[in-house]
Amino acid sequence: MSVGKTVWAIAEGYIPGESVSDDPALVSHETACLLNCGARDANVAITLYFADREPVGPYRVTVPARRTLHLRFNDLDDPEPVPRDTGYASLIESDVPIVMQHTRLDSRHPNIALLSTIAFAQS
Amino acid sequence: MSVGKTVWAIAEGYIPGESVSDDPALVSHETACLLNCGARDANVAITLYFADREPVGPYRVTVPARRTLHLRFNDLDDPEPVPRDTGYASLIESDVPIVMQHTRLDSRHPNIALLSTIAFAQS
Amino acid sequence: MSVGKTVWAIAEGYIPGESVSDDPALVSHETACLLNCGARDANVAITLYFADREPVGPYRVTVPARRTLHLRFNDLDDPEPVPRDTGYASLIESDVPIVMQHTRLDSRHPNIALLSTIAFAQS
Amino acid sequence: MSVGKTVWAIAEGYIPGESVSDDPALVSHETACLLNCGARDANVAITLYFADREPVGPYRVTVPARRTLHLRFNDLDDPEPVPRDTGYASLIESDVPIVMQHTRLDSRHPNIALLSTIAFAQS
Repeated sequence: MSVGKTVWAIAEGYIPGESVSDDPALVSHETACLLNCGARDANVAITLYFADREPVGPYRVTVPARRTLHLRFNDLDDPEPVPRDTGYASLIESDVPIVMQHTRLDSRHPNIALLSTIAFAQS
Repeated sequence: MSVGKTVWAIAEGYIPGESVSDDPALVSHETACLLNCGARDANVAITLYFADREPVGPYRVTVPARRTLHLRFNDLDDPEPVPRDTGYASLIESDVPIVMQHTRLDSRHPNIALLSTIAFAQS
Repeated sequence: MSVGKTVWAIAEGYIPGESVSDDPALVSHETACLLNCGARDANVAITLYFADREPVGPYRVTVPARRTLHLRFNDLDDPEPVPRDTGYASLIESDVPIVMQHTRLDSRHPNIALLSTIAFAQS
Repeated sequence: MSVGKTVWAIAEGYIPGESVSDDPALVSHETACLLNCGARDANVAITLYFADREPVGPYRVTVPARRTLHLRFNDLDDPEPVPRDTGYASLIESDVPIVMQHTRLDSRHPNIALLSTIAFAQS
């Protein structure tokens, strides 16, 4: 079954530079959750947009057929790492339909805060 | 009245393995809230997708006509329980239109964090 | 300008019975935020759905032309109050297009948690 | 590439008057994240709606081509500042397609809470 869209956007991005914990599960992070329900691998290109300089990318990832990828923006480093404490936005283009959701865990303070939202799907 | 869609997806799933409380209301949990406004029962099939193995399912639930079901993924156990501390995604297919929303309560830390988002509806 | 839809649904509803504070701003609450950008008043009917009994409603509210209404479900009492510590869902029907968003402030624990999501709009 | 819509609405707005911190990153705030992936600058007009008085606006901002703007409602002051501790809603109109997301950081309590949701896009 083909589920999803091929163009997604997340207008809100921000990775806090601080965390209360070194536990990888609790380090402040920003995640793009990608779901590929289809029978073909999804080749995905991510472009990052900033307030005051040219976009950076593409970052390339593959979501295998019938798999999900929970991608931490913290881990992207080619062509360059994602800056901390800096607002950004992202455009995600796939060659097959996928579904995308955006989550942040913020652990700057003694307790964690979570946000999540479905990304914008171009129709 | 017929309200909703028949195919929904949640790209983001994760049940923390720890909780600060044994109170069922405050145990870390992940919920799919299903609303069936219609006059016919909704027969729902849920398939779970993972990063590195084949999808699991279908899990089958019924949302009676004119009822809501707040389904905890924690409680799913047939064909197998949902693993803790593991990212997953879900595809939900119904034989009549329903509305779906996704919520997580994370109580790993001394205080709780909440997230919620409307699921992706295939149109 | 006419902005919005006439049929909205929130699959997830839950008003915690406890709060850490008596300050009205910090009592656990669930809010439907309604925006009417148009030139005519919006007559809105809300129906609540439950897990194990017939729907309740309609609750009737008016969103005046060019106004927003941040409606606390806690305050609804006609035809009957919304039960605490009970999952529910809601269907919102308006005679003119409106925009709707759903927010919960959970203050059961020493610190508050927030969630918000756009409601489902029937197209 | 043209990504997004030209009319967006956020039904839920509220800037808490208190914060636990003077650190700008942790002061309670409400943000509209705007993404312009296109080749032309976006001229954006924001109108604020209230419960009991006429709408205020337009507030005018520009999102340059291929840039993102993370706009704090706290910083808007022309034609007038956004009141604290007051519910409001916003309508955002752009002359080119943009993508919009809404985030709040609430730091009234000793710990922060976050919410985020995609705004409503008129289609």
